[in-house]
Amino acid sequence: MGKGQLTRHAVLDQAARTASEVGLRGVTIGSLADSMHMSKSGLFAHFGSKESLQLATVRYARDQFVNLVIRPALAAPRGEPRVRALFENWLEWDTRALPGGCLFVAAAVEFDDEPGAVRDELVRNQIDLGETIARVFRGGITEGHFRHDADPEQFAFQLHSILLGFHQHSRLLGDPLAAERGRRALDALLDAARP
Amino acid sequence: MGKGQLTRHAVLDQAARTASEVGLRGVTIGSLADSMHMSKSGLFAHFGSKESLQLATVRYARDQFVNLVIRPALAAPRGEPRVRALFENWLEWDTRALPGGCLFVAAAVEFDDEPGAVRDELVRNQIDLGETIARVFRGGITEGHFRHDADPEQFAFQLHSILLGFHQHSRLLGDPLAAERGRRALDALLDAARP
Repeated sequence: MGKGQLTRHAVLDQAARTASEVGLRGVTIGSLADSMHMSKSGLFAHFGSKESLQLATVRYARDQFVNLVIRPALAAPRGEPRVRALFENWLEWDTRALPGGCLFVAAAVEFDDEPGAVRDELVRNQIDLGETIARVFRGGITEGHFRHDADPEQFAFQLHSILLGFHQHSRLLGDPLAAERGRRALDALLDAARP
Repeated sequence: MGKGQLTRHAVLDQAARTASEVGLRGVTIGSLADSMHMSKSGLFAHFGSKESLQLATVRYARDQFVNLVIRPALAAPRGEPRVRALFENWLEWDTRALPGGCLFVAAAVEFDDEPGAVRDELVRNQIDLGETIARVFRGGITEGHFRHDADPEQFAFQLHSILLGFHQHSRLLGDPLAAERGRRALDALLDAARP
């Protein structure tokens, strides 16, 4: 990486951490300049506007998510093991990747009533993620792990719902059983999908 | 209601609407004074501080939730019908009660990293809600609708997760199938709980 790229990476890393704790709206050129001890004009040169900065933060976090959650899961054997790997990586991501947990959970709620480029990007991400989950589930149908008439999109909806429940139980309630509850919900979901 | 109470009610109604759209952090004495065409000093006389105002907003919304979701559900026959009534009222609440959907979903994500009286109140609400769901489910065990060894707290976790999934699908993705997906997830959850 050149110096410009290194700086950009460091700034976006800080931006993602901030977004996970106080939300994407807290990610501004001014707030980042403060926390990175950089000049606002220097950050403007990199990102141009608050919206571009927020978009870059979402894309940076998306790359992290793909690298930490999706890609390693695709290395697991197709079918149920891959579904379980995806789920475990996702729990880990929401627990440890960022100080405030998955920033997409926070951003989804922040931007659901705010039309614009950031919301559009978040929507695309969620749709892509849903399609990825459905595809991984379909692999399990092909392997004979899941019923042929099981609905992959419904599975994706329910898997995502469990993660949202886990997020709330672990982060808001500080429930030490949150991960166990999530895993038991996954087990029930898989049991219902078996042939 | 006296004039003071009427004003308080009107202010909190506006505050709950604002919180559902831009979050509880957007509920301040200043922003409310603007949208209600009232003086800041008048609002200070009613609420004293931003935190008191946010707390009053959470309590107002909680009363609404109890009146619109919990209480009518308790009028349904005990067991599965009551669980279904609770779920349907909750979907309706998240869809229509406030312009930005359930403000508790937004507030949970906003305040999960922010210790203080507002977070404590939100935690208490979530714990109470979980206990209410578990109690309604236990009624179904007594009625013979659900297995004796089913876990009411796990059921509450999973039911709440479905609502969070519904919220994201309907609000962020604008998915016209969101309610249907939620209902199918509830059906699967109930199927798994039957004797």
